[in-house]
Amino acid sequence: MSNSIGEKFQITTFGSSHGVAVGAVVDGCPANLELSSEDIQKELDKRKPGTSSVTTPRKEDDEVQILSGIFEGKTDGTPICGVIFNKNQKSKDYSMFKNTPRPSHGDYGWMMKYGHYDYNGGGRGSGRVTIGHVIGGAIAKKLLKIHNIEIVSHVTQIGDIKASKQDFNTIKDNIERNPVRCADLKAAGEMEELILAKKHEGDSIGGVVETVAVGVPVGLGDPVFGRLDGDLARILMNIGAVKGVEIGLGFDVATRCGSEINDEYQITGNKITTRTNNSGGIIGGMSNAMNIVSRIAVKPTPSISRCQDSVDLEKMENKKIEIRGRHDPCICPRVTVVAESSTAIVLADHMIRSGFIHPNNLEK
Amino acid sequence: MSNSIGEKFQITTFGSSHGVAVGAVVDGCPANLELSSEDIQKELDKRKPGTSSVTTPRKEDDEVQILSGIFEGKTDGTPICGVIFNKNQKSKDYSMFKNTPRPSHGDYGWMMKYGHYDYNGGGRGSGRVTIGHVIGGAIAKKLLKIHNIEIVSHVTQIGDIKASKQDFNTIKDNIERNPVRCADLKAAGEMEELILAKKHEGDSIGGVVETVAVGVPVGLGDPVFGRLDGDLARILMNIGAVKGVEIGLGFDVATRCGSEINDEYQITGNKITTRTNNSGGIIGGMSNAMNIVSRIAVKPTPSISRCQDSVDLEKMENKKIEIRGRHDPCICPRVTVVAESSTAIVLADHMIRSGFIHPNNLEK
Amino acid sequence: MSNSIGEKFQITTFGSSHGVAVGAVVDGCPANLELSSEDIQKELDKRKPGTSSVTTPRKEDDEVQILSGIFEGKTDGTPICGVIFNKNQKSKDYSMFKNTPRPSHGDYGWMMKYGHYDYNGGGRGSGRVTIGHVIGGAIAKKLLKIHNIEIVSHVTQIGDIKASKQDFNTIKDNIERNPVRCADLKAAGEMEELILAKKHEGDSIGGVVETVAVGVPVGLGDPVFGRLDGDLARILMNIGAVKGVEIGLGFDVATRCGSEINDEYQITGNKITTRTNNSGGIIGGMSNAMNIVSRIAVKPTPSISRCQDSVDLEKMENKKIEIRGRHDPCICPRVTVVAESSTAIVLADHMIRSGFIHPNNLEK
Amino acid sequence: MSNSIGEKFQITTFGSSHGVAVGAVVDGCPANLELSSEDIQKELDKRKPGTSSVTTPRKEDDEVQILSGIFEGKTDGTPICGVIFNKNQKSKDYSMFKNTPRPSHGDYGWMMKYGHYDYNGGGRGSGRVTIGHVIGGAIAKKLLKIHNIEIVSHVTQIGDIKASKQDFNTIKDNIERNPVRCADLKAAGEMEELILAKKHEGDSIGGVVETVAVGVPVGLGDPVFGRLDGDLARILMNIGAVKGVEIGLGFDVATRCGSEINDEYQITGNKITTRTNNSGGIIGGMSNAMNIVSRIAVKPTPSISRCQDSVDLEKMENKKIEIRGRHDPCICPRVTVVAESSTAIVLADHMIRSGFIHPNNLEK
Repeated sequence: MSNSIGEKFQITTFGSSHGVAVGAVVDGCPANLELSSEDIQKELDKRKPGTSSVTTPRKEDDEVQILSGIFEGKTDGTPICGVIFNKNQKSKDYSMFKNTPRPSHGDYGWMMKYGHYDYNGGGRGSGRVTIGHVIGGAIAKKLLKIHNIEIVSHVTQIGDIKASKQDFNTIKDNIERNPVRCADLKAAGEMEELILAKKHEGDSIGGVVETVAVGVPVGLGDPVFGRLDGDLARILMNIGAVKGVEIGLGFDVATRCGSEINDEYQITGNKITTRTNNSGGIIGGMSNAMNIVSRIAVKPTPSISRCQDSVDLEKMENKKIEIRGRHDPCICPRVTVVAESSTAIVLADHMIRSGFIHPNNLEK
Repeated sequence: MSNSIGEKFQITTFGSSHGVAVGAVVDGCPANLELSSEDIQKELDKRKPGTSSVTTPRKEDDEVQILSGIFEGKTDGTPICGVIFNKNQKSKDYSMFKNTPRPSHGDYGWMMKYGHYDYNGGGRGSGRVTIGHVIGGAIAKKLLKIHNIEIVSHVTQIGDIKASKQDFNTIKDNIERNPVRCADLKAAGEMEELILAKKHEGDSIGGVVETVAVGVPVGLGDPVFGRLDGDLARILMNIGAVKGVEIGLGFDVATRCGSEINDEYQITGNKITTRTNNSGGIIGGMSNAMNIVSRIAVKPTPSISRCQDSVDLEKMENKKIEIRGRHDPCICPRVTVVAESSTAIVLADHMIRSGFIHPNNLEK
Repeated sequence: MSNSIGEKFQITTFGSSHGVAVGAVVDGCPANLELSSEDIQKELDKRKPGTSSVTTPRKEDDEVQILSGIFEGKTDGTPICGVIFNKNQKSKDYSMFKNTPRPSHGDYGWMMKYGHYDYNGGGRGSGRVTIGHVIGGAIAKKLLKIHNIEIVSHVTQIGDIKASKQDFNTIKDNIERNPVRCADLKAAGEMEELILAKKHEGDSIGGVVETVAVGVPVGLGDPVFGRLDGDLARILMNIGAVKGVEIGLGFDVATRCGSEINDEYQITGNKITTRTNNSGGIIGGMSNAMNIVSRIAVKPTPSISRCQDSVDLEKMENKKIEIRGRHDPCICPRVTVVAESSTAIVLADHMIRSGFIHPNNLEK
Repeated sequence: MSNSIGEKFQITTFGSSHGVAVGAVVDGCPANLELSSEDIQKELDKRKPGTSSVTTPRKEDDEVQILSGIFEGKTDGTPICGVIFNKNQKSKDYSMFKNTPRPSHGDYGWMMKYGHYDYNGGGRGSGRVTIGHVIGGAIAKKLLKIHNIEIVSHVTQIGDIKASKQDFNTIKDNIERNPVRCADLKAAGEMEELILAKKHEGDSIGGVVETVAVGVPVGLGDPVFGRLDGDLARILMNIGAVKGVEIGLGFDVATRCGSEINDEYQITGNKITTRTNNSGGIIGGMSNAMNIVSRIAVKPTPSISRCQDSVDLEKMENKKIEIRGRHDPCICPRVTVVAESSTAIVLADHMIRSGFIHPNNLEK
């Protein structure tokens, strides 16, 4: 179905930007996982706008409430519904967008497909809808932690500025030290400057977000059509603004020879590893116990303060459009937690699917 | 499930490289579509090896047989099973690979996950398994043709050689004129040379395959998790050897501003189009009636004639491996029909899901 | 997944008897259906206890709140979340049931499967969870009404008292006139007496609920495994307390000859009907445009005020149990709206699946 | 999808009565299960017609061929495709049924829904299609056997003749001793006589088939919508000719009091059992480790040698129809293996879903 994802660990999200609430139902989390609303709130706060120079100054004091699935501080195997009531339901007048799609926004598709569209603040096409991903991801992460799987997403590129490679722990530490959530602190400074310059110009800029998962065992992924890379690609491409997904070397493989990039095996202690990790931890659609590395291409926010060409769908005539308001000049920093959450959801699902996590009860 | 894909137009594939047969069951094709085994054979012939200088000289005389779902030359709404009996079941000795995974092949995952693995010719991890995709794709294409949707895949890059942009009809014509299936005939020649050089060196080379779909109506794709771009990314990433997927500008968006790449609307005649198509025909997860453009990064074939490091999984010790045989030095030309088929399967599925094609009977 | 049902019109329910809330997410309802919380409240009131002599005197003032999916009074194609906050969260002490399953209740399964179980008021095994079915059913009914499909459920048997057969309109009228929701008013009186007698004895009694759907077109149901009768049987058997499902003549077919019960065809005006409807409107798994008639066997409420044998799961020893409180002596009257809702959900799903209702937008 | 069933152990069937072949793809069987075509053939032979006085004298020498999923005598975790090529493709002329549906057959639905229908021998609506169920069931049974789960189906009623209750081992033995597959040998004789009398009259007769599964652990079934009873009801109701499904006491619960039929718990040795098994092994949608007992109502074969009323769908006029040929006067004996197979498929699926059987590899 269109608003659900996952096979054994499944999330269903609902709600729109300016409706009554946004939320998610997480079905398939085994019983006996300690879980509180703080676990979810902590993750939600990472995507909160208004917290730094590079995000929109718009305030969203999102407070999650858990409606079900927790008994005496632990999951009980029943669906977990997390909900956030919207506070900005009637904040401003969006009526100029009613029949006039904003360029490179989803508006046009929603209008044509459903005929009746909540155009306020982008409706269900709004980035605010990723709150559902984060609710699901927060639970998935707690579940994965038990098996020592950790995930981190960081910004590796904004415009032409590219970050240098860092190891997992450095990434985790450094992204908390700068508003761009970039692990290379020098590049982070330059990225911040670039974003602020674009903000000043009323423009926006794109970037790349990389996600690294450590501790994943060998054998996640069900070939031929339930492959781990396919499932990751789907959930990551499903994030609004994402136009590309790579695993391991990604598009770089196009220019390379087999002799250069094949990942040769070796025995290290009593473990099998590969000398290199050009495959990004997935070969033949299955994890190989190396770090799982993906990258997504995030387009510049389409909402810019410039006059653009659009059309009036009712009158069927050309029409100019201006999108005022306080937009994110670059959404990459806020996308990091969504990429992390999405990756966590897929990994939790496959950990259960492949028998590493008991489907019903963690104490079994 | 792991071997099925699609919601309303669903394919389930089975079989392995050296087993009795490979095939696919296509469920959800509406009744009253004219269909013969020739329709499928024609597509299968495009992925046949041994037909040119740049593919493996291995012969596979694959002849498809339809076991069900056709009555008096037309589909009858019941599942269509297409099957190809393997002729090369006992062709050579693969026993040296039994406990020794080939670098960057799926072997390792299969061995560890299932414990019992048909290592002959790669088993179900073999590229031969994409015959199932092509069977499904051939049927999907016939279905889409009724609605004037056409799809073509072509090679746009091999190593550092990039093809120039061509229009849809030129692509369709030109790819038949060269073994690389590249639409830029000059680049095609250089690509062929590069591939032959790598073949000569016992090495392999990667590339990029682009797929263009024309005639797709507005509104395919079910947000938030049944988006068209997500479903395309999944099926394309699920093709063995693919390490990246892009829609529209893809990773290029990282370096661009919103003011540069937003696709502005205009009225052309009585139709709404966008001035540019940087979105690659999909915004907000839904088609916008512009051409749908995707690209996949195809890694160099991991089977190379060089001694590589591996391990003996039984003895748990390091071991050298040599993969002899006649391998494709570059699989991009043969991947084109698989990308085309995969795209067709997703589009056919969404055409039914969104009510453009009747789910049961084309005459309704 | 365990808490979702339906393919195109899908409901996911959550919540437990004494948790924060119970609710449902309905995904796949097309846009442009007029819908308000009153439409749902009206149906919920039918399952409300405390309204008559034959139900539990327990009060549940359930008020539904719609959190999403409605824009300006009409559905907008996005998921509809309906929620009811529980008011009786800490009403009484259930701790004596913590490790002691109540005979013929679901407790034992929940305890053993999940290890951690909200035993208060039956937790998610409570009948209160059918609120989710009713939310989904209320929306499904409004959708079906557009196509002149109507559904009614009524009590046809309590203990040995059987109601005589009535036509559709009489059923609709008469069930509102008596607390048993039986369409044969004479039998209704006797049933009421029997239920009150059992209540007085601290015992409970079973019965049969029949559901009739009129106006269903020919061709709903996807053979071989998506048959309409199979989908109805599943959703009806999934209602707690149901131990049997029949379509048409049901178990009566066992004693009959083909020559007696075959439904012969005839042309009536310009319509094809069958002379009899022993098939209950479904043959070969598909609707045949006759009334769809199902019956469910509803067991007596297992909660009775008598001392019963159970076991202490922790100490692994035999233990007596007494279930005090105000229970329904017969749940058949309250099950009617759940059967109606469940039938509506399946029919709405199949109306979309078979192309009778547009999947996205009612105005198309 | 319409031709697939199961979540983790999934079967997809294809083919029609007079097409090229019938078969099934079984996806999700873990690796390392010993399996040969003999295992499947043995089960198929149980539904073979022409083997006794009470079945059709029609011969069907069905020989199954396994096309995939087995390597060196054991499953390898990939989809298993089993196929039977039809030998009776052009056996006789069915053209009189082309536009004239047979009363109480599925014909009418198929004709109206799909517009193009293979009317030969009932097409995909034929009982022959249950070969797919039996292929899936044979594999499921072998998988369940490892966990000491056994299943048997037997005829308990034909017309008004009811068999007395027998224990599991007696059922298994006795059904092989009589053509009716009834465990009460005295009743079996009377049933055989009744069936032969009906055959002589050119008529047919209905009956009841009971299925008993022993050895099922506690906790199979995923409430609320993935309950074990719901899944059993669906797959059993999906068998052609079935018009009712009961679990445990079934419709008998309607006449009973809670105090009479509640299944009280007791400790027997170190095991928890219930004193009675009125619940048929399932409470709250989950197995409770008692025998799982279901019954299905099987209608008399609609093909009878009598002139019946039908209509000509093309000319839209009334028309008489006569169905000649050698039909089963009672299909209950042949339905037993289909009920057994269907039950096995559901149990195997839930054993994997609930973590009792490893999803990928039996040696883990």
